[in-house]
Amino acid sequence: MRMYDLIMKKRNGGHLTEEEIDFMIRGYTAGEIPDYQMSAMMMAIYFVGMDEKETLHLTMSMARSGELLDLSALSGIKVDKHSTGGVGDKTSLALGPMAAACGIKIAKMSGRGLGHTGGTIDKLESFEGFSTEISTRQFIQNVNTIGIAIMGQTKELAPADKLLYALRDVTATVDNMSLIASSIMSKKLAAGADAILLDVKTGSGAFMKKQENAFALAEEMVQIGKNAGRNTIAVVSDMDQPLGEAVGNALEVKEAIATLKGAGPADFTELCLTLGSLMLVMGGKAADEEEGREMLHKAVSDGSALAKLAEFVKAQGGNDEMVYHPDRLPRANMIEPLFSAEDGYVEELICDEVGNASLILGGGRETKESTIDLSVGILLKKKVGDYVRRGDVLALLHANDRKKLETARDRLLQAYRIGKHQRAEGPVILGVVR
Amino acid sequence: MRMYDLIMKKRNGGHLTEEEIDFMIRGYTAGEIPDYQMSAMMMAIYFVGMDEKETLHLTMSMARSGELLDLSALSGIKVDKHSTGGVGDKTSLALGPMAAACGIKIAKMSGRGLGHTGGTIDKLESFEGFSTEISTRQFIQNVNTIGIAIMGQTKELAPADKLLYALRDVTATVDNMSLIASSIMSKKLAAGADAILLDVKTGSGAFMKKQENAFALAEEMVQIGKNAGRNTIAVVSDMDQPLGEAVGNALEVKEAIATLKGAGPADFTELCLTLGSLMLVMGGKAADEEEGREMLHKAVSDGSALAKLAEFVKAQGGNDEMVYHPDRLPRANMIEPLFSAEDGYVEELICDEVGNASLILGGGRETKESTIDLSVGILLKKKVGDYVRRGDVLALLHANDRKKLETARDRLLQAYRIGKHQRAEGPVILGVVR
Repeated sequence: MRMYDLIMKKRNGGHLTEEEIDFMIRGYTAGEIPDYQMSAMMMAIYFVGMDEKETLHLTMSMARSGELLDLSALSGIKVDKHSTGGVGDKTSLALGPMAAACGIKIAKMSGRGLGHTGGTIDKLESFEGFSTEISTRQFIQNVNTIGIAIMGQTKELAPADKLLYALRDVTATVDNMSLIASSIMSKKLAAGADAILLDVKTGSGAFMKKQENAFALAEEMVQIGKNAGRNTIAVVSDMDQPLGEAVGNALEVKEAIATLKGAGPADFTELCLTLGSLMLVMGGKAADEEEGREMLHKAVSDGSALAKLAEFVKAQGGNDEMVYHPDRLPRANMIEPLFSAEDGYVEELICDEVGNASLILGGGRETKESTIDLSVGILLKKKVGDYVRRGDVLALLHANDRKKLETARDRLLQAYRIGKHQRAEGPVILGVVR
Repeated sequence: MRMYDLIMKKRNGGHLTEEEIDFMIRGYTAGEIPDYQMSAMMMAIYFVGMDEKETLHLTMSMARSGELLDLSALSGIKVDKHSTGGVGDKTSLALGPMAAACGIKIAKMSGRGLGHTGGTIDKLESFEGFSTEISTRQFIQNVNTIGIAIMGQTKELAPADKLLYALRDVTATVDNMSLIASSIMSKKLAAGADAILLDVKTGSGAFMKKQENAFALAEEMVQIGKNAGRNTIAVVSDMDQPLGEAVGNALEVKEAIATLKGAGPADFTELCLTLGSLMLVMGGKAADEEEGREMLHKAVSDGSALAKLAEFVKAQGGNDEMVYHPDRLPRANMIEPLFSAEDGYVEELICDEVGNASLILGGGRETKESTIDLSVGILLKKKVGDYVRRGDVLALLHANDRKKLETARDRLLQAYRIGKHQRAEGPVILGVVR
């Protein structure tokens, strides 16, 4: 078999077999197939596309390119939740303890943030002493006893996807639905869960700007999951403005804690309940979503969800006192308002600009090597549909540096578009793909 | 400017500007743009195509990527003839002296053969002492005094094309008309002639198997030439069977000498007269092709064409006695027949198989490093349309090695398809694109 012939076949509209895709992914991962052949192949796939079988084989082949996480030591149905990412997305922090309190086993691999989107691990490190650098053995043990554990992504998980994504990123071959879907799903399949719950974001702050594309991606991933024998459901949710009110590591942890106490923002709470109820059904803990929703409400009202967060933080070396005293979490020295310069309705609140303002404050990483300031960030006091008068507070900036504060404030003002039209607040859940 | 953006633009159906193409070709030639980005771009071009302007800019940019040959020291209109290549194509050897005898200035850069097609330089080295390793100064001087000189391709001519072709060759992005046309024309434009005469081959032994593709390529190249301000004409000629009867270096030289004496094969003679008459018109030596044809006939019949070959060979260090005594050219030790195994008409004579048989005898290079046996080759005694009886001689193999002879004989037999249908002999000239 020669890579040249495979490129030619795909270029001419052919379908690659399982063996051919395996040859290609193995060869590329081993460094035997050069980048220039793989990028030509990716561009041919961009134009010709891949059918359902090819997409499944590519996903499986990438999943098998490295270590496969063995979760068989965990009892019960393991459900993995994955979000395609956005600004202010602290879902795992609240959803994890909620679902675990209802008996779901949460065995999660998470990443750090890069650019203007935050990472779950960074956020959790707001708890003094908390570490995700635990052994696989400890990880399994924690999930079995407490019901929840989070560890950093091991390098060996789907290395082919990592290589391929880096190549696609510099050759304008990222935005093909099959390639995007197989990239995400290869990591999920390698991570070993029985059921996969996907949260596909759409809107200005999401990778998929258009709703129709988000639904197409959701459908493609659900199809792959099913074809791979995993119960897979995708929720398409709004990311046209940041989720909730808090953007920034410790600020998001505080918002998650508030939500676990039943006092979180409506949109964020609704997303947690929707995803959580699906998780409970997928994990066999609830008969239907309605029942699941009731179980989650109960876990919040009886304090067991919050207690689960404390238990989880403690088990991974963190200071669990902070769960009950969130004012002890990292705090910035300055809290300053952003005032509205005009009267009108908030017509738009551009995610990327909010994310960038937080990044400027020090809440994110410019490059992989950057260090992060956990205390800084933004609290959004006004969101889309709200009426404001000139001089009203639009948001609060939490900062530790005067210069960064001023730059971030200017930037954040760009995120708000104030106008005459009151846009109705859209639903946070746009649809469910099963 | 970033290569990434250019790939994206082309991928999305956009048109690249002159500046963008220049940036891309300069950057790639300088090693600043990596292969994997260029191969993605080539695949995008394969699918999206390039318009007339883009094709011209790419050609000019590649032509300018290295040295531009300055032929201004030559008086008169310089006409460059280029063939897309085939089996038994010894046109330059006969056409050059013929046209030079009629006053055309032939300043030609030639290559060596690779695979089953021969190179003009290899063939000329059949003349003892002949060398194409002459200085540009000597080259110019010879053209001015004798009217004809041939030198090896300098490495600096259109280096971008060489790099790009090598990349396309391994990424299944060769067969795009604009890319093929710009590759050929970039070298022709860099070689500095005022007028360019193209011989586009079509048929089983040509790069363009289908006539319609050959015409499309001819049109594309003529368009580029005209847009670049050069008088350009293309002849589309047959390569469905080898040209003439001789395949192999010294054998082809002998056939060219015979043709210069008016005793060459009909198809080869006709091709030389057609191309030659066009050259005379393009070079301002004849009013029309009819007049050109008469001049060429005269140069053959009065011996001036043959004398020009002798003069040319001598000027480049070769033994010109061999021109008048071709039996002194390199000769193989064995001359053995290939007999027909059946009665019938020659329905097909597959070029590639004839070329491969000659390659097996030692007449070509398997790799760039191979040495070549100038004396070996094949004389085709029967061609398409001829009737043969079992036991008739189809061809003569000239060989120096018994084992190679037997292998080549088996191979050559595969080249002949004998059947019941007498196919009419098609014309050698299929059309002219101006």
